[in-house]
Amino acid sequence: MKKYFAEFFGTFWLVFGGCGSAIFAAGFPDLGIGFTGVALAFGLTVLTMAYAVGHISGGHFNPAVTIGLWIGGNHTAKEVVPYIVSQLVGAILAATFLYLIVTDNDGFEILEGFAANGYGDLSPGGYNMTAAFVAEFLLTMFFLLIILGSIHKNAPKGFAPIAIGLGLTLIHLISIPITNTSVNPARSMSQALFAGGGYLSQVWLFWVAPIAGAVVGGLIYKALFDKE
Amino acid sequence: MKKYFAEFFGTFWLVFGGCGSAIFAAGFPDLGIGFTGVALAFGLTVLTMAYAVGHISGGHFNPAVTIGLWIGGNHTAKEVVPYIVSQLVGAILAATFLYLIVTDNDGFEILEGFAANGYGDLSPGGYNMTAAFVAEFLLTMFFLLIILGSIHKNAPKGFAPIAIGLGLTLIHLISIPITNTSVNPARSMSQALFAGGGYLSQVWLFWVAPIAGAVVGGLIYKALFDKE
Amino acid sequence: MKKYFAEFFGTFWLVFGGCGSAIFAAGFPDLGIGFTGVALAFGLTVLTMAYAVGHISGGHFNPAVTIGLWIGGNHTAKEVVPYIVSQLVGAILAATFLYLIVTDNDGFEILEGFAANGYGDLSPGGYNMTAAFVAEFLLTMFFLLIILGSIHKNAPKGFAPIAIGLGLTLIHLISIPITNTSVNPARSMSQALFAGGGYLSQVWLFWVAPIAGAVVGGLIYKALFDKE
Amino acid sequence: MKKYFAEFFGTFWLVFGGCGSAIFAAGFPDLGIGFTGVALAFGLTVLTMAYAVGHISGGHFNPAVTIGLWIGGNHTAKEVVPYIVSQLVGAILAATFLYLIVTDNDGFEILEGFAANGYGDLSPGGYNMTAAFVAEFLLTMFFLLIILGSIHKNAPKGFAPIAIGLGLTLIHLISIPITNTSVNPARSMSQALFAGGGYLSQVWLFWVAPIAGAVVGGLIYKALFDKE
Repeated sequence: MKKYFAEFFGTFWLVFGGCGSAIFAAGFPDLGIGFTGVALAFGLTVLTMAYAVGHISGGHFNPAVTIGLWIGGNHTAKEVVPYIVSQLVGAILAATFLYLIVTDNDGFEILEGFAANGYGDLSPGGYNMTAAFVAEFLLTMFFLLIILGSIHKNAPKGFAPIAIGLGLTLIHLISIPITNTSVNPARSMSQALFAGGGYLSQVWLFWVAPIAGAVVGGLIYKALFDKE
Repeated sequence: MKKYFAEFFGTFWLVFGGCGSAIFAAGFPDLGIGFTGVALAFGLTVLTMAYAVGHISGGHFNPAVTIGLWIGGNHTAKEVVPYIVSQLVGAILAATFLYLIVTDNDGFEILEGFAANGYGDLSPGGYNMTAAFVAEFLLTMFFLLIILGSIHKNAPKGFAPIAIGLGLTLIHLISIPITNTSVNPARSMSQALFAGGGYLSQVWLFWVAPIAGAVVGGLIYKALFDKE
Repeated sequence: MKKYFAEFFGTFWLVFGGCGSAIFAAGFPDLGIGFTGVALAFGLTVLTMAYAVGHISGGHFNPAVTIGLWIGGNHTAKEVVPYIVSQLVGAILAATFLYLIVTDNDGFEILEGFAANGYGDLSPGGYNMTAAFVAEFLLTMFFLLIILGSIHKNAPKGFAPIAIGLGLTLIHLISIPITNTSVNPARSMSQALFAGGGYLSQVWLFWVAPIAGAVVGGLIYKALFDKE
Repeated sequence: MKKYFAEFFGTFWLVFGGCGSAIFAAGFPDLGIGFTGVALAFGLTVLTMAYAVGHISGGHFNPAVTIGLWIGGNHTAKEVVPYIVSQLVGAILAATFLYLIVTDNDGFEILEGFAANGYGDLSPGGYNMTAAFVAEFLLTMFFLLIILGSIHKNAPKGFAPIAIGLGLTLIHLISIPITNTSVNPARSMSQALFAGGGYLSQVWLFWVAPIAGAVVGGLIYKALFDKE
């Protein structure tokens, strides 16, 4: 049970911190944190909780990561579903708290669409479905390469949360304009539920592309890098 | 006594560096550091002094952290009060130096309200009291989870100051628009004393919410994560 | 073969992440990441993949680094050419994916010239060929000093990817205005092929200056710092 | 001799990278790195070279640090003068290269005053001499506390360059508006020589205040924290 609580709190933090920074602080007049600040926030949610509870659950906080690690031989099959359930519950509860805080705002206009992911008309920079799919696929694939490589027994000990957390920062620096950056179905689902409309009908891509990328990342790592 | 000096200097640095960066540099025309720079500064005050004197005092620099660590079983009861006194003295002395420097400025208009925390009309983004309380409570609760988790004997050795310092950066990236970010009663008190007026009459929230969050964070950690 | 795949994926990631962040996110209206975000992205591509596959290939991802390490006595001669070939293939394939994604953009005008390097009229800040050569030479020379020093047996263990990755961030913070920052012929070549025209006729400088700087950096390190 | 070369190259890098980022990139239209980017650059010059050559010379790159470490009991008296000479030569040579590159710029107006430090009319934010002295004194004093604490035998091993480098970033986040941030007489001297005029007649403060702060920092550390 400790593991599931760790994934619950970690994914709550990822959504509350990452999406929260985007909703509250990205577009604040003059002093706002912009995409750079949001990218840093997402990465630091993972860096901080991976140091805090990574030694308990592995620190996935992301259904695509859980599946990719299972494919890559670093996670047991029977824990895949309970991990994903814990992640989804944490993400959706965090989005609920974000919604409560946002609606207690009296003077500052919040970005529409919560911090939901989208393509086409709902892409921040107007990128179409193909671009969105390719970006989410490739970025999650490399995210798994970074995770599997940095937790490998030959990698320097203790540094994986830095590599993985700042890897997520990097992924956001690249792709917020394309899809608002998912690489994490739990994060996407939690926002789409509140943003509704077109965001909800597009959320399938942010399940399919990250999980497909994670599976391919896990397979590549196993085939090319994990043998003696 | 070494411990109390460590907490005094550490909290001085947190207020001088974090609040100082906000006062001097956040809104500087064109080149200012904005909320991202302030968030980075607050986090780096803790990262730097936790490496410098964390091995002496534990590196709290924050009454809510001291209380949360005591609840979480990582700090002795008899040192709670002297730690908090050391932190308050350091914070208020730092604010005094900030005030002296600000009043020696001849050409650049300083943000009003010093770097004080507030809600309602005194919230940077116009968030009301409920939003402010929820945000400060949750963020301090997670701050304690990060601290207790990253200093746990099973966590990677030596990395806690990175996780904790950058955790404070993350907390600021999320919540400067909401309350100007406290999670630290000593930091709030030191600024309210100089900002006065409404800021002083609101300072109670920045004692109650962070301490309540820290207590709950300590209890959650003890109940869920600290058993074998 | 594992080594060559590691260099292939690492250099793909460097170009996809570093140049991608520049193309997609640097100039995004209001919220764009600017040169600071691009500098961070380039550095994090190296930091992340150096933790992930550095223990396999050394984590060069850059022909100038491979040559400089060979000169500095840290890489075998027979692996120089296959490393460079792997890096070039990875870089060019990444640029191809960037091109595919960019052309699927419907609403946001992309910076002209891809993320290519240039001098004179093609320098972001209008710096001439001499300035470009001196900057690329000196920055790559110091990059090699940082690499050779931080991987030395007397340096703290495990931290080299942080020093090297953030060293590349620093190099970009200095010199994006001068040449758009290369210090890496594979990165430059991959962009010039798509940018074409003047960028392609200037690409020689981004082979010659970084490699010359890397060779001199390797020689200086060997002569001054690597003896007992 | 290795030590003196290490200090020469390290201080060259500090001035070339820190001041260079300020001169070339801080005020670049729309995409410039601002004070946050400059702060990051200064810190990363120290972080990178402290990992690269810190195990050779200690990685001071700053006459005030050398003097403060000597006072604090971490540096031998007979090496104080040759260290400072090495640092000054490196700093001034770096400034010469910056000057050469700047004058090869054809299209972008450089900030006047090079990256020199100043107070009163020459303070970026119009702070007077008293404010400048207090800020430089306090910031260098804390810089020494961070250095002496993070290199102490009880501090976590290998992390000192992160604490010290990011400590210098923090110092810049606070005080660029006040004095353009020195805390380093070699850095100040190198810029004043090229900026000339009022900057040169003010450079005394950037020798006296940092060295006084470093001496007091060294004494405080020795008196309060370094005993058993």
